[in-house]
Amino acid sequence: MSEYRVVKPERLRELTVGIFVKLGMPQDDAHRMGDILVDADLRGVLSHGTRFIPTYAKWIKDGWINLHPQIKVVAESASTVAYEADDSLGHLVSVKAMESCIQRAKQFGIGAATVANARHCGAMAYYSQMAADAGCIGHAVTNGGVLMAPYGGIDPTIGLNPLSWAVPTNKPWTLNLDMATAVVAASKVTQAIEKGENIPLGWAIDHEGVPTVDPLEAKKGAMLPLGGVKGYGLAIILDVLAGVLGGGRFGANQGLEKYQQKQQNYSHFFMAIDIEKFIPLAEFKDRMDQMIDRLKAGRLAPGSTGILLPGEIEYNTRLRHQSEGISYPVPVLDELEKLATELGVA
Amino acid sequence: MSEYRVVKPERLRELTVGIFVKLGMPQDDAHRMGDILVDADLRGVLSHGTRFIPTYAKWIKDGWINLHPQIKVVAESASTVAYEADDSLGHLVSVKAMESCIQRAKQFGIGAATVANARHCGAMAYYSQMAADAGCIGHAVTNGGVLMAPYGGIDPTIGLNPLSWAVPTNKPWTLNLDMATAVVAASKVTQAIEKGENIPLGWAIDHEGVPTVDPLEAKKGAMLPLGGVKGYGLAIILDVLAGVLGGGRFGANQGLEKYQQKQQNYSHFFMAIDIEKFIPLAEFKDRMDQMIDRLKAGRLAPGSTGILLPGEIEYNTRLRHQSEGISYPVPVLDELEKLATELGVA
Repeated sequence: MSEYRVVKPERLRELTVGIFVKLGMPQDDAHRMGDILVDADLRGVLSHGTRFIPTYAKWIKDGWINLHPQIKVVAESASTVAYEADDSLGHLVSVKAMESCIQRAKQFGIGAATVANARHCGAMAYYSQMAADAGCIGHAVTNGGVLMAPYGGIDPTIGLNPLSWAVPTNKPWTLNLDMATAVVAASKVTQAIEKGENIPLGWAIDHEGVPTVDPLEAKKGAMLPLGGVKGYGLAIILDVLAGVLGGGRFGANQGLEKYQQKQQNYSHFFMAIDIEKFIPLAEFKDRMDQMIDRLKAGRLAPGSTGILLPGEIEYNTRLRHQSEGISYPVPVLDELEKLATELGVA
Repeated sequence: MSEYRVVKPERLRELTVGIFVKLGMPQDDAHRMGDILVDADLRGVLSHGTRFIPTYAKWIKDGWINLHPQIKVVAESASTVAYEADDSLGHLVSVKAMESCIQRAKQFGIGAATVANARHCGAMAYYSQMAADAGCIGHAVTNGGVLMAPYGGIDPTIGLNPLSWAVPTNKPWTLNLDMATAVVAASKVTQAIEKGENIPLGWAIDHEGVPTVDPLEAKKGAMLPLGGVKGYGLAIILDVLAGVLGGGRFGANQGLEKYQQKQQNYSHFFMAIDIEKFIPLAEFKDRMDQMIDRLKAGRLAPGSTGILLPGEIEYNTRLRHQSEGISYPVPVLDELEKLATELGVA
C-alpha cells in the first residue's frame, strides 16, 4: 500500500526535464515533456503523468523509443495528414500532429491527423486542449493497451481505447472530456492491487471469463467495455480512426515481432474543427454558457454535491495542486529521485 | 400489449411514398423517405422507421414541418458547411448534408456539416452508411429527445443524443455503430409500457430521482446516461457538435416558443473522412478484415453465441426481413393503413 508525500509541480518538472535531457533527449523536447506530464499530474490524472517516466526511461535504454525520430508525412490532403512516427515518444509527435490539425482547421475548416508507430502519449486531454486554446473543438484518440474483452467474448483483443474532446467556454475551465471506453481505466485495477483492495463486480473478468472482484485475477483476464456492447462498439471505432486508417498498429495484430509488449506500439488520431467556420467564437461561447448553466440549474440527485461538466473537476484540482502541491505516491517519487541521481541530474 | 403481423417491405414503402405525396411532399422526397424509413425497418430498428409516419403527418398538418423548405447555407469553408434547414423534415436535409460532406471529403480530405432547425431524422445509421458506401468513414449525430438526467442531477436537461459511425469492410456488411448515449433508448421504456412489463433497475429514475422499475414513472422522470459520467460527457459533446456549433437548438433551452414539444426541434451533425487520403481503400478494407477476424477468433463468453461487430446483426436482420417480411406491430400498421385510406392513397 502506497504512502503519499506532497511535492511541488515545479519539482516534478525539474525532474522530468533533467532526466530526459540526461537520457539524450533534445532540450526543447524535454521541456515539452515536462509540460505534458506535469499537466496530467496537475489535473489529478497521476496515472498518466510523471509516474510513467521510469517506464519511458527503460524503453529509451532498450532502444524502443527513438529520441531523434525522422517523422515522415506518408499521405496528405488539404484537411488531412498521416504521419509515420519512426518510434517517437507519443507525446512529441502528438503535439506536432495536433499543431498541424489546428493549422489546417484555420485554413480549411477541419484538420485531422493519424500517427503510426509511436509510443504512449499520456493523457489525451493535453492535445484536445491545444485545439480548444486555439478556438477549435479538439478531438484526440489513441488505441490503448489491448486489455479489453469484446462484447460476447472473454479474451482481451481490443484496447481500452480512450478519447478526449475539448470545447472552449467563457468559464475559467474548458469543457474537456477524457475517458477510456472500458468501464474503468486499467490503472484502477493496478491501484486496487497496490492498496490491497478488491475491485467492484462489473469492472473485469478473470482468464476464464468469470466476473471477478480480485484485481490480480482481473490482470490475468480482461477489462469489460463501458455499457457492454456500446463501449465495445466505440472502442472499435476509435481503433479504426487511430490504427486502421493511419497504417499503424491496431487491435492486437501488429508489433509482436518488434517488441514483446505488443500493446506498446501505439497509433493516434487527432482532429480540430475551427469554430469560426460555423459561428462567431464569442457567440459559440455564449451558447456554451447557456448549455452549462441550464445543466447546472437542475435539481441534484440524492447525495450529489453538484452537477459538474467534464473538465471542471480537473480545473479545480489544478488550482489546488498549484497552490498546495501534489499528493504523490512515495515509491514512485523515490524511483524518480533515484533515477535522477543515477543519471547525474543536478 | 401489441400483436404483430408480417408485412412485406415493399408494402411499407408504398404506404410511405403514397402518404407523403398525398400530404403534399414532392415525389422525389417522398421516395427518399420510403428508402430511409423502410431501411430502418429492414435493419430491425422499427422504433425509428415507418412507425413515425403518423407523427410526421401530424406535424405536417400542424405546419411544424415545412415540405418546401428553403434550406440555406449560413456558413461555409472548404471542409465545412452550416445549414439552416427552414423546418425541413430531418431526413431530407440530412441526406443533403451528408452528400455535401462526402463531396468535400473527396476534394479536401474531410467534410463536416451542421444542420439547424430541422425535425427528427430517424436512425443515424442511414447517413453514416452513405459515407461508407462512398469509401469514407461516416459519422452522424443528432441531439435527441431531452429526456436524460445529467450525472449528479435528476431533471431531464440533456438529450439521449445518439451517434453513428460507419466504416467500409470487405465483409458483406458494413461496420455501422448506431447508439444513444443513454443506458438504453427511450423507445425501450415505451415498449415496456406497451407490453405491460417492468424495466430493469438502472435504466431510469422517477420524477424525484429514485431509480425505478416502473416504465410509467420513468416517463415522468429521466433516463440515465450510459455508464454514468461517461455517457453524460459524450451526450454533451454530441450536443455541442450538433446544436451549439451549428446555431440550432441544443439541450432544452430553445424552441419552446415555437412548439410545445421542445425536444422536437432537432439539430444534426455529419462528417465524412475520405479513406483514400490516408491509405488505399483496398488496403484499409484488408486491415479491417484483420481486425474483425482477430476479434472473432477469441474465446466466447459463457452463453455467448458469437462475437459480432456493430452492424452485423442489422445485416442479418435485413436479409431475413427481405426474404420473409417484417414482423410489424398491428396497431401501428392499422394506423398507417387508416391514414393512407383517409388520404386517398391508391
